[in-house]
Amino acid sequence: MTSVRPAEIRVSEIFGPTIQGEGILIGLPTVFVRTGGCDYRCSWCDSLHAVDSEYREDWRAMSTEDVWQEVVRLSGGSPVMVTLSGGNPAIQPLGGLIDRGHEEGYRFALETQGSVARDWFAELDVLVLSPKPPSSGMETDWEAFDACLRLSKGRPQTVLKIVVLDEADYAYARAAAARYPHLPVYLQPCNHTPPPPDADDAPIDVEGILERMRWLVDKAAEDRWLEARVLPQLHVLIWGNKRGV
Amino acid sequence: MTSVRPAEIRVSEIFGPTIQGEGILIGLPTVFVRTGGCDYRCSWCDSLHAVDSEYREDWRAMSTEDVWQEVVRLSGGSPVMVTLSGGNPAIQPLGGLIDRGHEEGYRFALETQGSVARDWFAELDVLVLSPKPPSSGMETDWEAFDACLRLSKGRPQTVLKIVVLDEADYAYARAAAARYPHLPVYLQPCNHTPPPPDADDAPIDVEGILERMRWLVDKAAEDRWLEARVLPQLHVLIWGNKRGV
Ligand code: SF4
Ligand code: SF4
Repeated sequence: MTSVRPAEIRVSEIFGPTIQGEGILIGLPTVFVRTGGCDYRCSWCDSLHAVDSEYREDWRAMSTEDVWQEVVRLSGGSPVMVTLSGGNPAIQPLGGLIDRGHEEGYRFALETQGSVARDWFAELDVLVLSPKPPSSGMETDWEAFDACLRLSKGRPQTVLKIVVLDEADYAYARAAAARYPHLPVYLQPCNHTPPPPDADDAPIDVEGILERMRWLVDKAAEDRWLEARVLPQLHVLIWGNKRGV
Repeated sequence: MTSVRPAEIRVSEIFGPTIQGEGILIGLPTVFVRTGGCDYRCSWCDSLHAVDSEYREDWRAMSTEDVWQEVVRLSGGSPVMVTLSGGNPAIQPLGGLIDRGHEEGYRFALETQGSVARDWFAELDVLVLSPKPPSSGMETDWEAFDACLRLSKGRPQTVLKIVVLDEADYAYARAAAARYPHLPVYLQPCNHTPPPPDADDAPIDVEGILERMRWLVDKAAEDRWLEARVLPQLHVLIWGNKRGV
């Protein structure tokens, strides 16, 4: 296990450019910086290799400059959207990386469950808050969630992205959307066959995901919930559970 | 065959709400108003039932008010994004429908190849210009295309959406994007197995579409074309070639 000094970023993987497969930036080429470590343990987590401390030896403690150089290398120096994900990237010191990239015209999107708020959220270009519904087995701390919005100061483009497995999750998504009526909402059918952390090419129930997608589209339409977007994880449909694409 | 008086709209089908499967509004619930008739005949047209005059007897000449009432019925009176597509909806008198819907808080997106420009483009909320690449067999009239942009007066959110089948199409998309550097670009792998107009449940080569999608993602990334979004037709992946969903 590598020890991490305060200014170092714990990195699980950096890859791309590939397209963002989810939510507001769907289809946009992006370089992913996936950090290691998470304060949650969702039942259907699809990034356990970046969450479970069993895989800690694969994570690297990197300086801001080293992460930045890797992003530059992958993007060939062309400004690109950088997606900060995890694990929970909010528990890493990413403010310096964002400042460094902005100097060169790069943009930054953060995906987090909203359990940990940081000052540097205000520097982001896009903030994707992804509160976890009941099927995750987690409880949402709405005060922490509100703090994320407060610290972002309304500067990044901010959206809610909510994974939906079943009726209870749908009700949760409805309530979350009602709590933040000014935030655009993205609903995402749950990938109920996430890859185990040690097998990145595990089989995937595409038909099951599409079936849940159809259910969700019909449900939102019947409910006249006509502002929420419903989007599957495109990368899962295109590449399956394969990692690093 | 129905005769159409000037103020009437030639309608092929009205359906929804279902999600928009393509481009900038991907995932958003929408009611589709598909008009009948097109000044193009693209080789891979996926809407021949709304293009080929052989299917004219299925089209209805409807008044603006009748179209509007059908939209209201389908949406249950809840304001929704209405997508005007075809065929080429630009050859229909749709200005009155847009005004009528705006009074009630509905929004309107138009999808057109950009061969016919109309004053009422300036009233749209979203204008999707979809110039057709070489594989379509059509020639782009860039003067007509420019007129579409001019008449829209910069008011609707305007994007380019370009279908890509092969290298020549990709080069065309690159050139079109360079011609309009201020317009966001959406690239869409071509569905090379479009439904024949009289069989709405025809088999579809999903793996072929995904293969073209992966090729397009890699190509744009290698080229460092990092602003264009690459998105498949989601409805084709979810529902196949089925109509009315
Ligand atoms: S919050 Fe995200 S990364 Fe953390 S356990 Fe849940 S799904 Fe996995
Ligand atoms: S412009 Fe569109 S509707 Fe007309 S023939 Fe081409 S693909 Fe079909």
